[in-house]
Amino acid sequence: MPRRQTLRRKPAPTVLLTGFEPFGDDAGNPSWDAVQALDGARIAGHRVVARRLAVEFGRSLEQLRAALREVEPVLVICVGLAGGRAQLSLERIGINVDDARIADNAGAQPVDVPVVEGGPDAYFSRLPLKAMMLAMRRAGIPAEISQSAGTYVCNHVLYGLMHALRAKPRVRGGFIHIPYSPELAARHPGAPSLPVDTVVQGLRIAVRTALNTGEDIRVPAGTTH
Amino acid sequence: MPRRQTLRRKPAPTVLLTGFEPFGDDAGNPSWDAVQALDGARIAGHRVVARRLAVEFGRSLEQLRAALREVEPVLVICVGLAGGRAQLSLERIGINVDDARIADNAGAQPVDVPVVEGGPDAYFSRLPLKAMMLAMRRAGIPAEISQSAGTYVCNHVLYGLMHALRAKPRVRGGFIHIPYSPELAARHPGAPSLPVDTVVQGLRIAVRTALNTGEDIRVPAGTTH
Amino acid sequence: MPRRQTLRRKPAPTVLLTGFEPFGDDAGNPSWDAVQALDGARIAGHRVVARRLAVEFGRSLEQLRAALREVEPVLVICVGLAGGRAQLSLERIGINVDDARIADNAGAQPVDVPVVEGGPDAYFSRLPLKAMMLAMRRAGIPAEISQSAGTYVCNHVLYGLMHALRAKPRVRGGFIHIPYSPELAARHPGAPSLPVDTVVQGLRIAVRTALNTGEDIRVPAGTTH
Amino acid sequence: MPRRQTLRRKPAPTVLLTGFEPFGDDAGNPSWDAVQALDGARIAGHRVVARRLAVEFGRSLEQLRAALREVEPVLVICVGLAGGRAQLSLERIGINVDDARIADNAGAQPVDVPVVEGGPDAYFSRLPLKAMMLAMRRAGIPAEISQSAGTYVCNHVLYGLMHALRAKPRVRGGFIHIPYSPELAARHPGAPSLPVDTVVQGLRIAVRTALNTGEDIRVPAGTTH
Repeated sequence: MPRRQTLRRKPAPTVLLTGFEPFGDDAGNPSWDAVQALDGARIAGHRVVARRLAVEFGRSLEQLRAALREVEPVLVICVGLAGGRAQLSLERIGINVDDARIADNAGAQPVDVPVVEGGPDAYFSRLPLKAMMLAMRRAGIPAEISQSAGTYVCNHVLYGLMHALRAKPRVRGGFIHIPYSPELAARHPGAPSLPVDTVVQGLRIAVRTALNTGEDIRVPAGTTH
Repeated sequence: MPRRQTLRRKPAPTVLLTGFEPFGDDAGNPSWDAVQALDGARIAGHRVVARRLAVEFGRSLEQLRAALREVEPVLVICVGLAGGRAQLSLERIGINVDDARIADNAGAQPVDVPVVEGGPDAYFSRLPLKAMMLAMRRAGIPAEISQSAGTYVCNHVLYGLMHALRAKPRVRGGFIHIPYSPELAARHPGAPSLPVDTVVQGLRIAVRTALNTGEDIRVPAGTTH
Repeated sequence: MPRRQTLRRKPAPTVLLTGFEPFGDDAGNPSWDAVQALDGARIAGHRVVARRLAVEFGRSLEQLRAALREVEPVLVICVGLAGGRAQLSLERIGINVDDARIADNAGAQPVDVPVVEGGPDAYFSRLPLKAMMLAMRRAGIPAEISQSAGTYVCNHVLYGLMHALRAKPRVRGGFIHIPYSPELAARHPGAPSLPVDTVVQGLRIAVRTALNTGEDIRVPAGTTH
Repeated sequence: MPRRQTLRRKPAPTVLLTGFEPFGDDAGNPSWDAVQALDGARIAGHRVVARRLAVEFGRSLEQLRAALREVEPVLVICVGLAGGRAQLSLERIGINVDDARIADNAGAQPVDVPVVEGGPDAYFSRLPLKAMMLAMRRAGIPAEISQSAGTYVCNHVLYGLMHALRAKPRVRGGFIHIPYSPELAARHPGAPSLPVDTVVQGLRIAVRTALNTGEDIRVPAGTTH
């Protein structure tokens, strides 16, 4: 009698999405709300794993590196809140400097210190930004390319992510900034916003496009200054 | 044999909401999409009637006046698109001038002519703006007071509405500007937006608050310049 | 012996310019610096008189009305600082409401009270705004039409001025907002500015154009919303 | 009789400043006007040499490298126009990408190609940005740190400059963006501006501070996103 063959399905490759804990006095953080909504989702044959990072220089990167080791993703997209921006912002580059106007959630305020001592000045994102931007726009999600992720914890995480991936050329990674949710914008007169549902829809498209695109397409999306 | 008594229920008082047709090349106009979604709705014991106005100087006001005669509303809120604004903008005042940078949908471009020859320089909105703003914010809808509705068709309609209501002191009326929908903003890099669903939710709150508020509350919402 | 005839030259007609005292913590106020620089100047056969107003609801208007009685100008231009604006802003209209986000220099913070109890909702400026705007631009001075002077002391003064002039149809009057000086902008990262010299040059052109223009020219300078 | 000894004074060390030719339809370019005004000036014992660059990808860098060879400066500051910015912007970093929304003066429009094939992703400016910013502000010149020089010819020149200086660690170099002149802003309603005189004064301070500062001071001037 033949032995029953064990059918072990190979586990699906994973996508790591990260969001941030609330910053300062804010009750919530739409970056985590949006990412959490996709935890466990299947997109283009991949399984999404969502993780929450601290709004802290240093510790955010320790958490990210631990998640990279554990999840072994083929694609990483870190997501952060950019209060005041109006569209999903696909960040082009992370730079090797922390320059904090205000303290982080642990009270640290580094000024003009490198994210990684001795690291290169910057790392480009490895996401197919233009293809992602166009795919989101086609679906009616406002999206743009951003030339600067700032010099705070978001840029810190983007630079640290790309530094961590420097020896893994086949893993794609990058950062997306999102606007306030309407609930947060209601407390900031004049500030633009997008509902978390719209952001979730945009991130789903972003992940699918990043997984399905080889070389990025070339359409202009720069700035003159 | 007693005559069967006709039970005629008194019809519910009405609220008139107006939106605009698409402007120029745009495929749609979220002001009409939002208002249309409320056509026939019951809010605080009132029945909502939605009407669409032309993006034309002159004709928009003829349509509005016809709707006022027909619907006999106790409350009128005209709604228009303000591409570039980020929040629902409750307009404080309409001014007696047309000054068009671009032609309207009929090709007219009036410059520095009055909306109503011989009319007063301006009319304040009669809506309880501060109460409406706070009610929307409490529900997580971004809302603000605006000190100018511009000098185009939207201001034309606001001024014309208040002029039409000058002899009806008990009818409340005013104007709300809304942001792009995400679909329209996706074609305008950097432009803020709100989904039509969020706008509908905001208008519902606006109508209910206007119906339920006597004298407006006094909270600061002005600008220094 | 015949009495020596007194040869009394008829005094030149006057132009009244007003600026404001410093607001809050600011060391100076470029609106007063610019206006003061023109005190005593001769422009198009007229003599300029400069007066400084308090940044206070109520008292600013008492000072303005006293100056009107004393100076008996044929033209009045009130000038105020609009930190954050980039160009000389020719205000189109003053509205009958005070709505202060912050207290004035005397600690008062009126909210939703009329400038003049029982006054009309608004008064248009009586300056030839378009001719002034074009004359400044031709001279390389950035200038624009503004549809709102806000709801603070500047609008208070504009509305109060036009109310005071309601029975003097031949006296022209209005309000111009100016940007920060570079010195003030140096303390506000990102804020636009113009040197006081440039503002003085612009005001000189504004006065000359207002004196030499009959009916204003019609060029579009409105806003769509 | 001894021959009169020729006293050859050692020539002063040089500072290279560059500006740009007019772009597109513009009659002039304030970056060149400002830089040209300093040509031949003595600042802190150094002689200023001004050179004009083409608004062209590629050729601008050939001209810059030729000037570097010829002038052998100890300090290089390239200056460019950033229409829409309000302050002198000290650029923090140049990135290795050209992404042009519009064609340059030669009709080229590169999209997502590196400035230097195989070069690192970015180079930080070597100027003491914070000391320069504070010195300008103390003198009443509006100044700020910028995290992105864009992806057009200005960034192209900044990246190319720092690449050219990579083997000359003692030569300092960087880039400053300047606002419109009032003359140019007069044709762009709402756009901020600074007179060329103010810019010249700011550049003079920038050069002196860069020459006199060793290690930069650390004050926060970053952005949260």
